[in-house]
Amino acid sequence: MPRGGLSGSFSTPRVDVLIDMGNPLLNITVDGFLKIGAVAATRVAAEDAYHAFKRGSLSGDKIEHSLKKMCKEGAYWGTVAGVYAGMEYGVERIRGTRDWKNAMIGGAVTGLAISLASNNHKDKIVMDAITGSAIATAAEFINYLT
Amino acid sequence: MPRGGLSGSFSTPRVDVLIDMGNPLLNITVDGFLKIGAVAATRVAAEDAYHAFKRGSLSGDKIEHSLKKMCKEGAYWGTVAGVYAGMEYGVERIRGTRDWKNAMIGGAVTGLAISLASNNHKDKIVMDAITGSAIATAAEFINYLT
Repeated sequence: MPRGGLSGSFSTPRVDVLIDMGNPLLNITVDGFLKIGAVAATRVAAEDAYHAFKRGSLSGDKIEHSLKKMCKEGAYWGTVAGVYAGMEYGVERIRGTRDWKNAMIGGAVTGLAISLASNNHKDKIVMDAITGSAIATAAEFINYLT
Repeated sequence: MPRGGLSGSFSTPRVDVLIDMGNPLLNITVDGFLKIGAVAATRVAAEDAYHAFKRGSLSGDKIEHSLKKMCKEGAYWGTVAGVYAGMEYGVERIRGTRDWKNAMIGGAVTGLAISLASNNHKDKIVMDAITGSAIATAAEFINYLT
């Protein structure tokens, strides 16, 4: 049955990017990179839009600077998220269960990996692993609450 | 049937505190405060244990300092988490749906509230709201991935 007339629906943007890499671990990692990278880039865009709105002007130079910052921050958040998502999936496969301890272990390994990659001091690496673990556990708990 | 013998099971610590305040919004907020506060306190304890292990000594003075820091950080993380959990629940009730936009709005309101409470500059408050929103959205996305 053909529908006529004007459809009045308005749909808010849906974030759904699907890229099949042929491997679940890789799929999750790439998915995490793209989605969280997009969130981080949006954050930079929103911040810079606020500043431009306050200043009341928008120059080409500023836009270029914003775009570069969006790419940089997006790549950084995306990498952290991709590593974490991959780690959590790996821990889940190894342990064979789904609970908050996966998030705890995944967060610790991610903190460790990111800290190692940035050439930090030995103490700083341990601190980062503990902090990553705590943040991931906290995020997991909050999700169970609501 | 009475069970005899020695039970050999070992259970890892479960985090489950249930306090009924008679109101779902209050329950979620208190729950968030206690659980995330416990996570933050554990993080401080783990960090200080690492430092004590490295130094090879443990004085009463240091323990007192660690305990104070655990309470302070636990209360801070707990407050942020409690406000966020309550906000997300409130947004869910008002919007009537469950999706990532609840996390986005809840994160923004939480960032705003925490920033306002710390007497920040006007620009800083807007930035904190945007950052809170981005972090909450990212955490929500990561949870859907795995």
